[in-house]
Amino acid sequence: MRIAVIGATGTIGQAVCRALASRHEVIKVGNKGGDFQVDLANPDSIRSLYQAIGPVDAVVSAAGRAAFADLTKLTDEDFAFSLSHKLMGQVNLVRIGAALLRDRGSFTLTSGVLSQEPMKGSAAISLVNGGLDGFVRAAALELPRGLRINVVSPTWVTETLKARGMDLAGGMPADEVALAYVESVEGTQTGQVLNTRMFRR
Amino acid sequence: MRIAVIGATGTIGQAVCRALASRHEVIKVGNKGGDFQVDLANPDSIRSLYQAIGPVDAVVSAAGRAAFADLTKLTDEDFAFSLSHKLMGQVNLVRIGAALLRDRGSFTLTSGVLSQEPMKGSAAISLVNGGLDGFVRAAALELPRGLRINVVSPTWVTETLKARGMDLAGGMPADEVALAYVESVEGTQTGQVLNTRMFRR
Repeated sequence: MRIAVIGATGTIGQAVCRALASRHEVIKVGNKGGDFQVDLANPDSIRSLYQAIGPVDAVVSAAGRAAFADLTKLTDEDFAFSLSHKLMGQVNLVRIGAALLRDRGSFTLTSGVLSQEPMKGSAAISLVNGGLDGFVRAAALELPRGLRINVVSPTWVTETLKARGMDLAGGMPADEVALAYVESVEGTQTGQVLNTRMFRR
Repeated sequence: MRIAVIGATGTIGQAVCRALASRHEVIKVGNKGGDFQVDLANPDSIRSLYQAIGPVDAVVSAAGRAAFADLTKLTDEDFAFSLSHKLMGQVNLVRIGAALLRDRGSFTLTSGVLSQEPMKGSAAISLVNGGLDGFVRAAALELPRGLRINVVSPTWVTETLKARGMDLAGGMPADEVALAYVESVEGTQTGQVLNTRMFRR
């Protein structure tokens, strides 16, 4: 398959590229790095990306930023940024790409367990993640030409916890998290929220 | 208690007002009708509402509009409207009201089962409902002064199904749906997504 990985330079994205590279042609898309660049918050940038990369069988997004801050400190701009970037950015990858993917292709987005298992500071992120899960369940019912869509809901990634000096308990190495993305791309599921804990080795 | 019901003129809102009126002072807030009016999509309108109604012990929102249409027909404007109205409108009721509610007061928002049980046409609504569920779980961890927050996730309301000429199977009368709101206001739960099916008589 010919697969575009959005967020290919991030911790999860790199692991997804490693997991897919031996069996597929992987196109690495970054914010600044990678083979191609995209600004997820800008629908025109997404349209340009699809034109630039040409036909693909799968789009994997491990991208999208959202604001982490105390509820009382989250500003209107923090919410607007989170909604336009991680939430609508990924939704627009699907809305724009649905007409362009090859038949029986797939989308795999990224949400996160903070929608179900919140922590202090996660109000905007929990909102965004829950929105993505809801969108994917619904969009799967309507995608044309046998297209599939799933969303991976990762738990904390060990590499990220290490980089932040946080407790490693409950974390999963990025290479294990990547297995959920591989299952979404190579399997037959659609409309699923894939909790990465189900993919522990 | 002194309780503001936003969306008091709607099918669910009217039932919630009926259920609360015998034991509490209910302030009815509508888009156009009711004792007070608010435009949920406009944060300034929400601020004005709180100033106008004065101190309350509970805010119940059974309000918020979102677009229902085929995935390929949902426009950028449909998503923007749904996000600013049902999603951020209710989120802003909490963000603005958190400093104004009386100690140990509560917020009760409304999402809907389409986040978990989508149908064709519900992509934007499923997104919005999932976002609200995620936000409420997280916000509960941070609200000050013993404030609580829950979200009621209603199934289809019988009255709405009847009005639309749809199959009544699976619907619940608004007066039963209202019991979930009463439980949220009068009970002690917080951070919960209340599926109205748990409140069937």
